Amino acid sequence: MKSIGHWINGQHVSTDGRDQDVFNPALGEVIRRVQLADRKTVEDAISAAQQAFESWKRTPPSKRARVMFQFKQLVEINQDKLARLIGEEHGKTVSDAKGEIQRGLENIEYACGVADALKGEYSKNVGPDIDSWSDFQPLGVVAGITPFNFPVMVPMWMFPLAIACGNTFVLKPSERDPSSTLFLADLLSQSGLPEGVFNIVNGDKEAVDTLLEDKRVKAVSFVGSTAIAESIYRKASDNGKRCQALGGAKNHAIVMPDADLDSTVNQLLGAAFGSAGERCMALSVVVAIGDKTADALIDRLKTEMAKLKVGSCLDSENDFGPLVTKQHQDKVCNYIASAQLQGAEIVVDGRDIAVPGYESGYFVGGTLIDKVTSEMTSYQEEIFGPVLQVMRVDSMQQAMQLINDHEYGNGTCIFTRDGEAARYFADNIEVGMVGINVPLPVPVSYHSFGGWKRSLFGDLSAYGPDGVRFYTRRKTVTQRWFSAGVREGTQFAFPS
Amino acid sequence: MKSIGHWINGQHVSTDGRDQDVFNPALGEVIRRVQLADRKTVEDAISAAQQAFESWKRTPPSKRARVMFQFKQLVEINQDKLARLIGEEHGKTVSDAKGEIQRGLENIEYACGVADALKGEYSKNVGPDIDSWSDFQPLGVVAGITPFNFPVMVPMWMFPLAIACGNTFVLKPSERDPSSTLFLADLLSQSGLPEGVFNIVNGDKEAVDTLLEDKRVKAVSFVGSTAIAESIYRKASDNGKRCQALGGAKNHAIVMPDADLDSTVNQLLGAAFGSAGERCMALSVVVAIGDKTADALIDRLKTEMAKLKVGSCLDSENDFGPLVTKQHQDKVCNYIASAQLQGAEIVVDGRDIAVPGYESGYFVGGTLIDKVTSEMTSYQEEIFGPVLQVMRVDSMQQAMQLINDHEYGNGTCIFTRDGEAARYFADNIEVGMVGINVPLPVPVSYHSFGGWKRSLFGDLSAYGPDGVRFYTRRKTVTQRWFSAGVREGTQFAFPS
Amino acid sequence: MKSIGHWINGQHVSTDGRDQDVFNPALGEVIRRVQLADRKTVEDAISAAQQAFESWKRTPPSKRARVMFQFKQLVEINQDKLARLIGEEHGKTVSDAKGEIQRGLENIEYACGVADALKGEYSKNVGPDIDSWSDFQPLGVVAGITPFNFPVMVPMWMFPLAIACGNTFVLKPSERDPSSTLFLADLLSQSGLPEGVFNIVNGDKEAVDTLLEDKRVKAVSFVGSTAIAESIYRKASDNGKRCQALGGAKNHAIVMPDADLDSTVNQLLGAAFGSAGERCMALSVVVAIGDKTADALIDRLKTEMAKLKVGSCLDSENDFGPLVTKQHQDKVCNYIASAQLQGAEIVVDGRDIAVPGYESGYFVGGTLIDKVTSEMTSYQEEIFGPVLQVMRVDSMQQAMQLINDHEYGNGTCIFTRDGEAARYFADNIEVGMVGINVPLPVPVSYHSFGGWKRSLFGDLSAYGPDGVRFYTRRKTVTQRWFSAGVREGTQFAFPS
Amino acid sequence: MKSIGHWINGQHVSTDGRDQDVFNPALGEVIRRVQLADRKTVEDAISAAQQAFESWKRTPPSKRARVMFQFKQLVEINQDKLARLIGEEHGKTVSDAKGEIQRGLENIEYACGVADALKGEYSKNVGPDIDSWSDFQPLGVVAGITPFNFPVMVPMWMFPLAIACGNTFVLKPSERDPSSTLFLADLLSQSGLPEGVFNIVNGDKEAVDTLLEDKRVKAVSFVGSTAIAESIYRKASDNGKRCQALGGAKNHAIVMPDADLDSTVNQLLGAAFGSAGERCMALSVVVAIGDKTADALIDRLKTEMAKLKVGSCLDSENDFGPLVTKQHQDKVCNYIASAQLQGAEIVVDGRDIAVPGYESGYFVGGTLIDKVTSEMTSYQEEIFGPVLQVMRVDSMQQAMQLINDHEYGNGTCIFTRDGEAARYFADNIEVGMVGINVPLPVPVSYHSFGGWKRSLFGDLSAYGPDGVRFYTRRKTVTQRWFSAGVREGTQFAFPS
Repeated sequence: MKSIGHWINGQHVSTDGRDQDVFNPALGEVIRRVQLADRKTVEDAISAAQQAFESWKRTPPSKRARVMFQFKQLVEINQDKLARLIGEEHGKTVSDAKGEIQRGLENIEYACGVADALKGEYSKNVGPDIDSWSDFQPLGVVAGITPFNFPVMVPMWMFPLAIACGNTFVLKPSERDPSSTLFLADLLSQSGLPEGVFNIVNGDKEAVDTLLEDKRVKAVSFVGSTAIAESIYRKASDNGKRCQALGGAKNHAIVMPDADLDSTVNQLLGAAFGSAGERCMALSVVVAIGDKTADALIDRLKTEMAKLKVGSCLDSENDFGPLVTKQHQDKVCNYIASAQLQGAEIVVDGRDIAVPGYESGYFVGGTLIDKVTSEMTSYQEEIFGPVLQVMRVDSMQQAMQLINDHEYGNGTCIFTRDGEAARYFADNIEVGMVGINVPLPVPVSYHSFGGWKRSLFGDLSAYGPDGVRFYTRRKTVTQRWFSAGVREGTQFAFPS
Repeated sequence: MKSIGHWINGQHVSTDGRDQDVFNPALGEVIRRVQLADRKTVEDAISAAQQAFESWKRTPPSKRARVMFQFKQLVEINQDKLARLIGEEHGKTVSDAKGEIQRGLENIEYACGVADALKGEYSKNVGPDIDSWSDFQPLGVVAGITPFNFPVMVPMWMFPLAIACGNTFVLKPSERDPSSTLFLADLLSQSGLPEGVFNIVNGDKEAVDTLLEDKRVKAVSFVGSTAIAESIYRKASDNGKRCQALGGAKNHAIVMPDADLDSTVNQLLGAAFGSAGERCMALSVVVAIGDKTADALIDRLKTEMAKLKVGSCLDSENDFGPLVTKQHQDKVCNYIASAQLQGAEIVVDGRDIAVPGYESGYFVGGTLIDKVTSEMTSYQEEIFGPVLQVMRVDSMQQAMQLINDHEYGNGTCIFTRDGEAARYFADNIEVGMVGINVPLPVPVSYHSFGGWKRSLFGDLSAYGPDGVRFYTRRKTVTQRWFSAGVREGTQFAFPS
Repeated sequence: MKSIGHWINGQHVSTDGRDQDVFNPALGEVIRRVQLADRKTVEDAISAAQQAFESWKRTPPSKRARVMFQFKQLVEINQDKLARLIGEEHGKTVSDAKGEIQRGLENIEYACGVADALKGEYSKNVGPDIDSWSDFQPLGVVAGITPFNFPVMVPMWMFPLAIACGNTFVLKPSERDPSSTLFLADLLSQSGLPEGVFNIVNGDKEAVDTLLEDKRVKAVSFVGSTAIAESIYRKASDNGKRCQALGGAKNHAIVMPDADLDSTVNQLLGAAFGSAGERCMALSVVVAIGDKTADALIDRLKTEMAKLKVGSCLDSENDFGPLVTKQHQDKVCNYIASAQLQGAEIVVDGRDIAVPGYESGYFVGGTLIDKVTSEMTSYQEEIFGPVLQVMRVDSMQQAMQLINDHEYGNGTCIFTRDGEAARYFADNIEVGMVGINVPLPVPVSYHSFGGWKRSLFGDLSAYGPDGVRFYTRRKTVTQRWFSAGVREGTQFAFPS
Repeated sequence: MKSIGHWINGQHVSTDGRDQDVFNPALGEVIRRVQLADRKTVEDAISAAQQAFESWKRTPPSKRARVMFQFKQLVEINQDKLARLIGEEHGKTVSDAKGEIQRGLENIEYACGVADALKGEYSKNVGPDIDSWSDFQPLGVVAGITPFNFPVMVPMWMFPLAIACGNTFVLKPSERDPSSTLFLADLLSQSGLPEGVFNIVNGDKEAVDTLLEDKRVKAVSFVGSTAIAESIYRKASDNGKRCQALGGAKNHAIVMPDADLDSTVNQLLGAAFGSAGERCMALSVVVAIGDKTADALIDRLKTEMAKLKVGSCLDSENDFGPLVTKQHQDKVCNYIASAQLQGAEIVVDGRDIAVPGYESGYFVGGTLIDKVTSEMTSYQEEIFGPVLQVMRVDSMQQAMQLINDHEYGNGTCIFTRDGEAARYFADNIEVGMVGINVPLPVPVSYHSFGGWKRSLFGDLSAYGPDGVRFYTRRKTVTQRWFSAGVREGTQFAFPS
């Protein structure tokens, strides 16, 4: 069985220490092993990155960008292979995986414009004959720690921009689905990236701790659950590192009585069940204004959900695949059970789904729960599965109160035709990414991604303009020249 | 004796708990008492700020800016009074205090342009008929904790911009010189600022801890020593607050053999001894390239330092005043003694200065120490007094290594005529604020202030564009409208 | 009778050549005379401006801004006097005049932030060790030629920003109402503006031609009718000057069937009749979608228009005042007559209005015309009077076609509740300034003002960010330093 | 013999009207014919562009950018072929042609970031609950008219950005070397650009006049001689089109006594003789400060110029090739003769150069003229040939006066080590593009290209940020929503 190692200083590196199973979740079978880096291996990666930094930071930004132009092209050429690697280990459908790759490509595209994004501000005559300007310099070695649910896209939120800004990078991807991520290292190398600028260590807590403790690592970008995000943010901050740590979510959609229900239902299906709901931007709660709206909505959702197809990533007919692990499958089913127990109504139950040929796969079917209330566990916690919960309230104000009271503040959406309602919602909702008739309001790559409240720890959002700011530090230069005899004088005033 | 209280919700508030002496350091006498806020008082201030927030954040930015236009005018009108209050409690000369006020005014001026600075980015068609834009919203209640050495300017780095961005503010100024800061509250009130938007609590650790622990405080700006900055940054971060904490410094100037020595010496005197060296941007170390340069420099410095006048803040002939406390005076003298003990040469000794009529004042005269090395305590630590130390090295590269190896990275400067040397220095020095023939390279208010390494904890610099980013959080809205019958149809398609 | 002269090089200047009557249009009486500058006088003003330029451009932007801070304050203090001067010569009510002054003040506020607005872009390492940055330098002497309808606001669109950018200015205001404009020169002088930086010449075609022909004038800003705007743009362009020339308008509002009619009617009244319709942003055409909407709208307009009060500027009860001249009064009445003749229906007729005590004033009352079509003269041309015309169409698409076919493209507005309709309108309408439920969508001072089609000749809009770009020229510097022995070597490598 | 036609609506189009010879200037032989478009053909191209506009402008910017990503790749793959086509018809060496292509590629790279560059500014609460934002919309059909000297690069200054901004394009390239330009149309088509978005018409004055007169053409970008630039700017402006017209140049380098002469001479050779001096940024005048500097400089130049190799574009040993036509060769020789006649000293004479095997080619060898003065014709006019003229002055101030007095203001450079001299020069020189030790200070693609004085007619520079502004028009939207019952009410308030 293939054993997956690391990528350090432009080379595949194997370690013979601890390792761990990698599953195909549709089959429920181990298909590979992944090595878990010890402290020494992580330090080797950091050393490689540290060594590469001096020369890479001096490379003109436009030249660094050209590596990204090349990388974009290679990712495009290899996207089928990448998508299959994602599907095999994560379980999401290949077409969904291609969507993920496309989003990642957009971040590479943004990184291609880094020379423009790095421009500082220049002021002449801040005082008489005194000029001042700002320069945004790379930090040094920066680390990324990324989750299983987007093994290609989330790393691409980080490393293309970090590298284009002149940093060198150590990535610790999820140990659940490491193959697609590792393949990126090959493509980067083929794109002409110098050795040591990008490194991957597979691993677990030991690897993470090493990254958080090594003084040479200047910044850490993390995406994962809130509990870990918070702990990583604290540890990184305590160790004097810059950190942005993105955590969990509970994304609500308000459906107003004037919403276009056909479009709304269509949008909700993809947003709730795509990728089996294993997305930090998944839309997991619908708040319907008025019972009439709720009834009509549930009616249509039921009809449409009957058509959902669940199964292997390879069958392009499927809407979504299995959950990532057996444990996670159990956890999601328990949430459904708890909702029922606490008084909610299971309208569509995905717990007993049978997928012929994939009987050992970790599948949960699309699930719709009505009459959910804010006291229920299934509402308070992030389920991260194909479960859509419906709440019923009487007014938009009540719906907004629910959202503002929730501990998470990643994404949210309103479905309405009304300009005033949309504007009021966008202005007053305590959530970082807001959709108006857009159920997954993930900002495009030239804007920045960031939740509020306990969905993001840190001052700056991820990727886009904030990403540039995160991966650089400001230097301000103030310059005056003492008048020499040079200008007025003749040549004799000069040293000869 | 006057007892100084707090400013909460638009009113002077007195508490009868703990209090503390306020000295006139030139006389060495207690002139006032300052009350130390307990937890309850600080919470009252936070409550006032919290209550004022909803309405203040909805006030259009241009209207908020108009309060700042008014405030600027009132500070200008009252600058003599302000400067005397500073001088009396801090000890710096009135003309130096006016310089401080002027720098503060520039920050108010920048805050007057907040409507422009708050602009988000708007993208049409991020997808077909989908638009996206960013909006920078205020955080809520934010706190400032400020040091004794700039009782007016450092608070003005914070609150004008924070408030103009739509936040409400609780300031805990230094308990050493509270009067000038408190006077600002009166001026803000006269400028039309609504009650509760700006509040001051005088206090000590209890007040600081309350600010760091109260969940309603969303961000903390701090300026002070590195030890406290680090501890405040950790505590604020652990409590989920945004924080920028500015700490200590050891600012070096490199003097190259081609420097214009007359101008250089002239610049160094002000930069080293102004405000008795009690500035985080004070230039405290000169690194001379070559003995010839060093000898010539010391020669001229000695001559010029003989003319320095030290005394009361009220005498406009004086160059600088006393140190802020007896303890600090002793500490500075001990540093001088330690340098001597560790092998440095005291060229000009300010320890035994006599200031007629101010015999009990905490004066230390301008001190020049030659042949300082990097092992000496006086080099490794921040002295914060009128002490200029000279180091001798053979090359620019050695000088830069010294600077890059020091734990602080606030400001630095090079004196040269050579374009290449200046560019190399600015590019490669590991310091956040760089001067080229500018000994105190404090960025102007429309740029941002921030050191590197252990001089600043946090991702963003203070004031200017980074200040706006610090005092706001990004919200990204993505909007699509489902096509209605409205456009194509006749009026009959509409609800009537 | 007082004779109004010029302001050149910091002094009031009188000329004894040609002059002209200045009327009080409410009384229909001559109240002053205004001198008309000959070529020589204009050249004197240009010379003064030229001479002042060298020193003014070198004044740091923040210092130039401080003159604007001061000027803002003086305009605020003197706004009652200014408003009365406007009302007396122009006829608009004092409260309307104060609105104009307020808009002008906002442009001064923007100019106060010029140091930030002038920032260039700085790029390190555009090539190996090569840096590049842009610097926006003032042009030199620039001229403004402004219309009678906003004697304070339109000049303030121009000179505060032009001056703050480092240019010097020659203003030729309207000869109909010169007093308020001239008063600004006094206030600028009191604000500390150096002599010669700002100059005013009153005059007519001779003055204009001189400004357009003199080589020392580098740019011309014009606001007036389209015919003159076009001719000035051509002449200025032919003479190698930068020019922006703002012309006429025909601003339509679409009223959709779902609009909130109460609010809509309320908005329309002010937008159509305020300042007697003598505004380039006046809303002069309403396009109602469907007869039902049209009927309801006209019904309410009729009711509300009965309450309009017309008369002297001094009576604060009045909604608007007289037209500016007898000739203009006749012209407006002729447009009303022509509409009637060409088949429109005069719903409310303002032609025979009687204003007791002001029988010789040039008054026209609020006029409402229904069933206007695109062939009518009153539709094709700009009326510039208190006349609101209603057109009836069946669909939003037809309404948009009307607007897109019109030669002007200054402002437009839609009244609707529907998000999709609003977005479609804003995106596809061929007009530069678009309101959504905002009938006078004049951009605020930190955005820029500019119509499309024959409403603006030139590449850049007026004031705001485009204004800064218009009043400066880009210089790009690219810098490399040859490596000297300085850095590596010892001090002996240096000239001594 | 091959006859070169046009590219209209995605197809090669041939016309049988007038045509003209295309030469290989190294051989002095006709190698192809180029068809000259008549009015009808140009109008067909405009129609194609007009028709393609509606759908292209609606294509999201990121999708438009993706065509540019693809185009970049195809240009890179085909650069050898492109370079040979340039060399064959223009005469420049293949390696020089590749440099031109590289510069063009950088403009494509900038166009790849158009989604970011098109961002408007968004302001919430410009008034209570009123928002405002700017949107930069494409103009429609825009035209480019480009010169022979950069048949690939100069068109690429224009069309990639214009197209990426959503415009459609008609290019009229130089009729001297049309083949490389036409090849770009093929590559664009292969990149997925929709038909009609990019069109090429070969032609002469008739084609130009048609472009300048057709109302559907909204903007014209021109690069060529000053006389034609001025006439095109006037005509375009008169016809209501936006125009930027770049004209001639006379680029001076000041060599200061402290300059590093080896580096300077090395830089000067390429800048003066590269591409046979047929560049608007060619460095054609050296102003030496002091005779000592001049003598040393000329000495070294003479030595180095002896090594220059002139000949066919295909031989990679050659430094430069022939001039573009026989007429131009004569003109350049006449300038040399006139200098001699007017008292200058011909140090190196390139008039009688013999290139074995290319006896009929239009060669002029590298020529160095000393003691040139400002009265000479060869100084006042642009030579556009491999001729470097040296002037001798006593001070930097005199040198700057010369430059500031010249009618052109495209590029300039100073060679010095002195920071103060460089800063003074950059600040005060009346030239748009300034080099400090950089002899060809062409701004990189993410800055903008623009001369001053009679080197550029128009308000905005070419390419980069100014290019985006030139190829778009600003629309400002101001939006308010009337409060509906929607938010507060229950669902019953809604239309059902």
